[in-house]
Amino acid sequence: MAAAATIAIVGGGALGGYYGARLAQAGFDVHFLLRSDYDAVRANGLEIHSVAGDFSIPASRARVYRSVADMPKADLVIVALKTTANDQFGPLIAPLLKDDTAILTLQNGLGNEETLARLFGAQRILGGVCFVCINRLKPGVIAHTAHGLIRMGEAFSARVERVEQIAAWFNQSGVPCQTLADLRHGRWEKLLWNIPFNGLCTIMDLTTDLILARPAGVELVRRIMEEVRMAAKATGVTLDGSLVEANIRRTFEMGAYAPSMQIDRRAGRPMEIEAIFGVPLEQARSQGQEAPWLVKLYEMLRVIG
Amino acid sequence: MAAAATIAIVGGGALGGYYGARLAQAGFDVHFLLRSDYDAVRANGLEIHSVAGDFSIPASRARVYRSVADMPKADLVIVALKTTANDQFGPLIAPLLKDDTAILTLQNGLGNEETLARLFGAQRILGGVCFVCINRLKPGVIAHTAHGLIRMGEAFSARVERVEQIAAWFNQSGVPCQTLADLRHGRWEKLLWNIPFNGLCTIMDLTTDLILARPAGVELVRRIMEEVRMAAKATGVTLDGSLVEANIRRTFEMGAYAPSMQIDRRAGRPMEIEAIFGVPLEQARSQGQEAPWLVKLYEMLRVIG
Repeated sequence: MAAAATIAIVGGGALGGYYGARLAQAGFDVHFLLRSDYDAVRANGLEIHSVAGDFSIPASRARVYRSVADMPKADLVIVALKTTANDQFGPLIAPLLKDDTAILTLQNGLGNEETLARLFGAQRILGGVCFVCINRLKPGVIAHTAHGLIRMGEAFSARVERVEQIAAWFNQSGVPCQTLADLRHGRWEKLLWNIPFNGLCTIMDLTTDLILARPAGVELVRRIMEEVRMAAKATGVTLDGSLVEANIRRTFEMGAYAPSMQIDRRAGRPMEIEAIFGVPLEQARSQGQEAPWLVKLYEMLRVIG
Repeated sequence: MAAAATIAIVGGGALGGYYGARLAQAGFDVHFLLRSDYDAVRANGLEIHSVAGDFSIPASRARVYRSVADMPKADLVIVALKTTANDQFGPLIAPLLKDDTAILTLQNGLGNEETLARLFGAQRILGGVCFVCINRLKPGVIAHTAHGLIRMGEAFSARVERVEQIAAWFNQSGVPCQTLADLRHGRWEKLLWNIPFNGLCTIMDLTTDLILARPAGVELVRRIMEEVRMAAKATGVTLDGSLVEANIRRTFEMGAYAPSMQIDRRAGRPMEIEAIFGVPLEQARSQGQEAPWLVKLYEMLRVIG
């Protein structure tokens, strides 16, 4: 992949819009596949209200497409779809691929890399774990309220050149980006937070501060996190025990925070239950590891979402 | 206890108000201990809007008290407190007792009879399981929207005269009342519904119809009910397997129903977590019976309430 790489962003929500806009602003050749935001971005460009300084990609420079058939082949496809749309991988991604196109999924949870690998070949696939607070204010307008770090790695290979190249592009674009020697460790590390807080906040419709308001809630979070550690361990990923208290402390500092899945529930949108709960549970079970809280959070979420 | 028995109602919410008003309307000598509704009932009496026909107890005939010290000793004390106020049993009930005063608790869940027995002697205690839809519209005004049946029994004795006498008084007052040979069977039979639906509806803030809207929800309710059956069995109570499907069918027919605990959560009022979840769980565990769903519902409710 050359520095003049062609980058396709598949998934036009806040995530794809934000990171794509950062890359485009830095001068990369970024092509956005959009659905509901197409008309707005075509007319007015992409507008980012960011804690790091507002910026916009004017309509004249925003390369947006309603159909993937109209897009150029890409050197890098960034997948920013919600995992609930993973059944669209085939039609949305296949037309973008050349022999050496890399696919980087920035999606939540587990299983996305495997699904992409089955469809398009394992050698193409990278994954990134995003730590960013963004939301779409209206079509074409995204608020970036905190953080932004991506930790990314090869999904099925130990080679380092490609991921370091892509990470460098992000870093050049003002997106702090680290490379992971073990992507699965990064995924499980994020699940350590996502499983208890997306689970409990969504099921009970309570923000994080209310989950932690009583000792019973803190203890419950701690127990679920320990269970996630055991599940990760069964699949070969060792999460340091200190991460539990560090994550709880960090969540206290976040105040009244509504995780993405809780926001999805409130808005009546599909929730990423399989990627964050179903696949991790299945992976633990396939190693003979029971996960009593994980299974119950999963089953309750399936009643809601 | 004579037909001219003196009846004290302790707990002035919808439950005590409704059943007390029925008994008073039938001519029984009923004395109400009230707190927040005292002024309203003293001024305007008790007003019942009932599916079975409206009626009222005029202020001139309503015997209401703000302090238990002013009340006469009773032949029958009907306990209609929320179980979250059970720590008030001593001061609220002791002053009403003669040697042969009977105490009938109409409260939800398990453990109330035992607590009353420890304080006042097992020989006094009866329990009633209420199937009634009532709510307090404003002080002194109660809506009775469906049902009304009480199934009651001696808590710690096989004698039948006393419970038949009290049941007869209710039946004479227009309250359908059956006697139970085994009160604990009646309590667990109600828990078979209360545990899954109070639990899931309250935790997820979904009415019963939404819990049952997907196969995953029906299956979850079924599994929790089977777990309640196992818990009951461990404590010596056999609930017929057919009750599971019968309860699910009946709940479908109820439409969009919000169980009392869900209403309490929405209103920010104390929830009866111990009586409906904590004590049943403790009883099952004391017999070596695990109850994985019951414990998790309990722990999640303790985060909320």
